[in-house]
Amino acid sequence: MKKSPLQRVRSEYQPKLPKALQGPVKVKIGEATESVADQEEIKKLFPHTYGMPIVQFEASNEPEHVEEPFNVGIILSGGQAPGGHNVVSGIFDGLKRLNKENRLYGFLMGPSGFIKHQYMELTAGYIKEYRNTGGFDIIGSGRTKLETPEQFEEGLKILKELNIKALVIIGGDDSNTNAAVLAEYYQNIGAGVQVIGVPKTIDGDLKNKWIETSFGFDTACKVYSEVIGNIQRDCNSAKKYYHFVKLMGRSASHIALECALETQPNVCLISEEVLAKRMTLDNIVSYLCYVISERAKLGWNFGTVLVPEGLIEFIPSMKDLISELNDVLAAHSNEFEGLDEMDKLRAIHAKLSPTNADLFKSLPKHIALQLSLDRDSHGNVQVSLIETESLLSEMVKKRLEEMRENGQYSGKFNAQHHFFGYEGRCADPTNFDADYTYALGFNAAMLINAGLTGYMSSVRNLTEKSEYWIAGGIPITMMMNMEKRHGHMKPVIQKALVNLNGKPYLKFASMRETLALNTLYQYPGPIQYFGPAEVCDRPSMTLLLEHDKEV
Amino acid sequence: MKKSPLQRVRSEYQPKLPKALQGPVKVKIGEATESVADQEEIKKLFPHTYGMPIVQFEASNEPEHVEEPFNVGIILSGGQAPGGHNVVSGIFDGLKRLNKENRLYGFLMGPSGFIKHQYMELTAGYIKEYRNTGGFDIIGSGRTKLETPEQFEEGLKILKELNIKALVIIGGDDSNTNAAVLAEYYQNIGAGVQVIGVPKTIDGDLKNKWIETSFGFDTACKVYSEVIGNIQRDCNSAKKYYHFVKLMGRSASHIALECALETQPNVCLISEEVLAKRMTLDNIVSYLCYVISERAKLGWNFGTVLVPEGLIEFIPSMKDLISELNDVLAAHSNEFEGLDEMDKLRAIHAKLSPTNADLFKSLPKHIALQLSLDRDSHGNVQVSLIETESLLSEMVKKRLEEMRENGQYSGKFNAQHHFFGYEGRCADPTNFDADYTYALGFNAAMLINAGLTGYMSSVRNLTEKSEYWIAGGIPITMMMNMEKRHGHMKPVIQKALVNLNGKPYLKFASMRETLALNTLYQYPGPIQYFGPAEVCDRPSMTLLLEHDKEV
Repeated sequence: MKKSPLQRVRSEYQPKLPKALQGPVKVKIGEATESVADQEEIKKLFPHTYGMPIVQFEASNEPEHVEEPFNVGIILSGGQAPGGHNVVSGIFDGLKRLNKENRLYGFLMGPSGFIKHQYMELTAGYIKEYRNTGGFDIIGSGRTKLETPEQFEEGLKILKELNIKALVIIGGDDSNTNAAVLAEYYQNIGAGVQVIGVPKTIDGDLKNKWIETSFGFDTACKVYSEVIGNIQRDCNSAKKYYHFVKLMGRSASHIALECALETQPNVCLISEEVLAKRMTLDNIVSYLCYVISERAKLGWNFGTVLVPEGLIEFIPSMKDLISELNDVLAAHSNEFEGLDEMDKLRAIHAKLSPTNADLFKSLPKHIALQLSLDRDSHGNVQVSLIETESLLSEMVKKRLEEMRENGQYSGKFNAQHHFFGYEGRCADPTNFDADYTYALGFNAAMLINAGLTGYMSSVRNLTEKSEYWIAGGIPITMMMNMEKRHGHMKPVIQKALVNLNGKPYLKFASMRETLALNTLYQYPGPIQYFGPAEVCDRPSMTLLLEHDKEV
Repeated sequence: MKKSPLQRVRSEYQPKLPKALQGPVKVKIGEATESVADQEEIKKLFPHTYGMPIVQFEASNEPEHVEEPFNVGIILSGGQAPGGHNVVSGIFDGLKRLNKENRLYGFLMGPSGFIKHQYMELTAGYIKEYRNTGGFDIIGSGRTKLETPEQFEEGLKILKELNIKALVIIGGDDSNTNAAVLAEYYQNIGAGVQVIGVPKTIDGDLKNKWIETSFGFDTACKVYSEVIGNIQRDCNSAKKYYHFVKLMGRSASHIALECALETQPNVCLISEEVLAKRMTLDNIVSYLCYVISERAKLGWNFGTVLVPEGLIEFIPSMKDLISELNDVLAAHSNEFEGLDEMDKLRAIHAKLSPTNADLFKSLPKHIALQLSLDRDSHGNVQVSLIETESLLSEMVKKRLEEMRENGQYSGKFNAQHHFFGYEGRCADPTNFDADYTYALGFNAAMLINAGLTGYMSSVRNLTEKSEYWIAGGIPITMMMNMEKRHGHMKPVIQKALVNLNGKPYLKFASMRETLALNTLYQYPGPIQYFGPAEVCDRPSMTLLLEHDKEV
């Protein structure tokens, strides 16, 4: 692999560690914990790993106690997030500091490599090639869910074969939930294997009091903000387009919100607000048309609109429509076969309840087709394939024409569409994410050495300089509650949606009207690695605001 | 305007000037010139500005001669390109060095501001806000063409009113052609106004022996290469998608080629090659399917394909089809009115010649509709609206299914689509573009002071350190030839398409097979401003290769 000039220089970057991890550590044990809700049920489901204490590492004057050399396995689970490679190198360096004989194995292409016994040993020379780089290509990732005893037993075989003492699972909320289940399982059967989770997801929805942010969120949002800023500068130079920008983030709108705080677009839709206010598609279109027509009065026929990817599933009426469509398509699929597009749409329309039929009819044809065609293997519509950004712009265009006929609008409306997701998931990590992930990995090695299982690697106090970061472990069961999944109540880590009483949202909401009716774009520019700290090391606005910092 | 942390630091950057421009200059006059072709016709059309010498500035020990304070006007013409603001600040600083009383006026929103007398004075405090930033928002840009005597006369009124001695037009090949026509016109009527052009376009197609590159190309390509690199890292981590990336650049494929050299995708199509080899759409689809099926044999069902925006107009058979469609739609538009989509396609199909009818029928329906619906005000299809990236991926998908039935393919094919254009046109300029544009602007001020008109600002030797850059002026007529435009022969600056015998293309062609059947992606990462020179100051690969430099 030939490296780019930036990569060559960047590979020499030494990520900063919290003071406590810079030398030997001692373990400070906290109080016993409880889950955030449904304590009785969760305690019953996790008899061996429930109620464990929070632990924190402190600098020690004595070397760590290491019984004998041990081996560790790692799995990268789910979607890519910037910094994954530094988690791996952090674990590696932590293990080697404990004992040069310790070994690290990577399971290939996610949990499936664990089950199928596909792995490689990660050596110093191999890891060197991946330090401070984006991507999960060091061992690959995958979406296989690790949840059945059969899988756990299959995996245990290779763990035993490789003499692995602990497994580190780097993943989002679901993967960490499964890590807790696996930890409990191995504890229950006395397998002698620890399981440690590491909080990853660009979506930013794996966070709570103890996990201040998931890794990758910072970098991904900065890449998206860079290109949104560039588009806004173009928008404000050409003054002739409305740019509709859809942003990855299927359930939560953290990414859209962070990008809005960074770039100050004219509009940013927040799914959680749409749901809380029970807004309809019509409400959203009306709001957009209000902003566009008011800006037109000021002579501005241009603007920017950020749209979270998961929006339409948060619009209650759309959710109802999609749900009925799922049923209708499942029940009548053979009747629709062979029909041409228009006939199919008419046939579906005829089967819908009156409210949903009206909504279905109001949609642009290609969107109605997307909703009618694409089902995943579970029979659900694949929302990521719905072009929400063009759905909105087309409905806005139509409404504006009606307004024009009524004399309420006399501007020009031309739209451009963008979707940013893959552009940010594998970017080279910012200094923040490079340091954070390296610390998370290094810390995971210390958790293993402390003999812990069912813990998530936790590095906190992230708005301070990295030397003051607090490193330790949180029992995963502590973050759990019971939720319905596929019709059954299951113990899961609570997902953090955008908090409508939280500072990031409130900050945005306080600016919203001003941003809509002015042109106050900000242009964050590209991620910098070598400049002054205020440019290179600044964490996300979301994190700063959540911790009452100035932004 | 609240600035981002990067912008605050970056605004302090002092662009580097060639040694010759760092103090007083003297003018070195070269030999008389000739146009690149059609000398007789062009001489006849430009009796006052044809044959002028190339000039070059050299450092002088004596202060420049400046008669008395003078005023200058500027116009930003056409699409945005990174660095436009530094051209403005370079002119400003150049004028102020000559005489503190000199003034600079900007015409608003492109040539239309000149004709409509909309302008503002550009003062030190205002310009300060825009130094080293992307965008053309300092005065706005526009696409009005400056080509009629009525416009020239209308503009002259405001020039006289503001006592403007020279007009600087910052634009692409067409705008610079018009600058030459305007220079000749004002010279002919003795208007006493000089006209100077500055070579701008991200497309990279305004270049020749004297203009080594147009400004903005470097930055735009680096932004696109950053996000393409990120996508490639994702592609190589997830190993499940083919990413089709369409890149801006309507006529030439310089952007796609530069990005291919920077990122090493599996495939990059080059329009100029398609034209030269008279490739059909079928040829292109076959090549893509060859690469995809060969990669599938290696177990790789993922890859990246770069597609230049203007591709389909370079496919001879598609060009024929589009041309006939233009005629058919113009002649029969009323017959097609009110028909539904399928009927319209059938009706159009029936009117096409047999070859074009077959090709039309082979296209995915939504592409056929795009080709049938969208006409610009001149009755031409708007090629930028054709989703070439999905046209290709859909035809590939279909072909692969046929190959599967014949046992020639047994992989998986899933595509993602991207289009990058607006993301790069207004990015903050790289150090290269920041320096180059500042030098072009500063140099333009010196050309004005030298009393020249009909010249393009030329800064050369760009692969060397900026102090060794050569600054001067080139008569625009020198770059001209006669070409047919809208049915008439006109004098125009020769557009530089990708040279299939040039080093950049040959370098790519030499790697092409290897890149297709391996996974050798490069990840350039984000533009850096503060790091080591090899990271921050490196010009484009195209420029380096064209000047026989190592890459």
